[in-house]
Amino acid sequence: MPNTVDIKRAVVLLSGGLDSATVLAMARDAGCECHCLSVDYGQRHRCELEAARRVAAQFGAASHRTVSVDLRAIGGSALTAEIDVPKHRDERVMQADIPVTYVPARNMVFLSIAVGMAEVVGAGDVYVGVNAVDYSGYPDCRPEFIEAFARAAALGTKAGVEGEGVGIRMPLVELSKAEIIRAGTGLGVDYGLTVSCYDPDGEGLACGSCDSCVLRRRGFEAAGVDDPTRYRQGAM
Amino acid sequence: MPNTVDIKRAVVLLSGGLDSATVLAMARDAGCECHCLSVDYGQRHRCELEAARRVAAQFGAASHRTVSVDLRAIGGSALTAEIDVPKHRDERVMQADIPVTYVPARNMVFLSIAVGMAEVVGAGDVYVGVNAVDYSGYPDCRPEFIEAFARAAALGTKAGVEGEGVGIRMPLVELSKAEIIRAGTGLGVDYGLTVSCYDPDGEGLACGSCDSCVLRRRGFEAAGVDDPTRYRQGAM
Repeated sequence: MPNTVDIKRAVVLLSGGLDSATVLAMARDAGCECHCLSVDYGQRHRCELEAARRVAAQFGAASHRTVSVDLRAIGGSALTAEIDVPKHRDERVMQADIPVTYVPARNMVFLSIAVGMAEVVGAGDVYVGVNAVDYSGYPDCRPEFIEAFARAAALGTKAGVEGEGVGIRMPLVELSKAEIIRAGTGLGVDYGLTVSCYDPDGEGLACGSCDSCVLRRRGFEAAGVDDPTRYRQGAM
Repeated sequence: MPNTVDIKRAVVLLSGGLDSATVLAMARDAGCECHCLSVDYGQRHRCELEAARRVAAQFGAASHRTVSVDLRAIGGSALTAEIDVPKHRDERVMQADIPVTYVPARNMVFLSIAVGMAEVVGAGDVYVGVNAVDYSGYPDCRPEFIEAFARAAALGTKAGVEGEGVGIRMPLVELSKAEIIRAGTGLGVDYGLTVSCYDPDGEGLACGSCDSCVLRRRGFEAAGVDDPTRYRQGAM
């Protein structure tokens, strides 16, 4: 499916969380035909894959694929191995080091698959919801990594060698969580469909105290937007 | 498992083919404790995963993991979708364009997982059997891609940010197939254990006429080494 002048296609990495739902809304708002990609990497918080399906459906994505990559086979993270997810951490502590919820090479794997899918569907851009403000502890969320990855992708793909290549867009990179929530709310994102918690229960209810829940909750407070997150009883 | 002064660990990408078996022998010869990584990406030539197990066992690899990544979900290649594998092609034709056996973003995905595994096992290097002589048609086998990828990996990993990073070694990149075969033979590689064919039959017997078989067969001829490949009846 080659690109035509009339159709601007994009691959959107959609985790089912707050950030990537906002990115999908932004890509659609930019006029893209959106092909969503979710990755089942053996994450403990698998209900986010269900959330991704709900979000893709809400925005009328042109397609939605879930690719399985068993990162449990390499382990090394609280999200893929039997390592406890940290709770009730102060934001300054979160940003001081690389947390155990870092999944080795995760964004590199996700972006690689997304670039391959962009080649196949004829998309000129991959949209990814990395953010360097709230998650500065993750090396693979920094813009300098994404920019270096984009240079590698231009050299290592058919699209880069023979065509116009695949760009990597990261519209959230400089936004705070509150700014992301305000932007998404303005674009009609229903955050009640999304799941951000690293340690949800069997019904997908959020714990309220992992790093991701803490940042999300404070983001809604700072944005002055009602928090639609379904927390489990006794959370926080 | 942090690195110590005494143990030099490496992750070796092991497909089960001729090139990666040679790379494993070279990494072991360089004194590395070798942790092998094979990727089940839904390839049609799945018997190469069995071959990888045999090769890892022959060389006494410290560990061998097979990670599943379902690249069939994105398709776009003769190796992962219902597209015919080309046969009886002249080498000049092979090198003139990017063949349909190119798998979008495959090496990027493999290297990403390998870098993640290197972080987990405490390996300082990833060894990969890319070769720019015989397969110059594949953009993701070119040294400029690998070097750009290594720069991205240094920025996007915990090992790169906090430690000494993960190097990407490509000892075959400037060698002809005959030179690879001579080097591996000198290091004790049993090429009878390996499978290179893109289109083997159910018993793993080689077709003799896909690009990979053609290059392999000519390599043995040029090296003056007996070809131990098991071809199927009537092949060539």
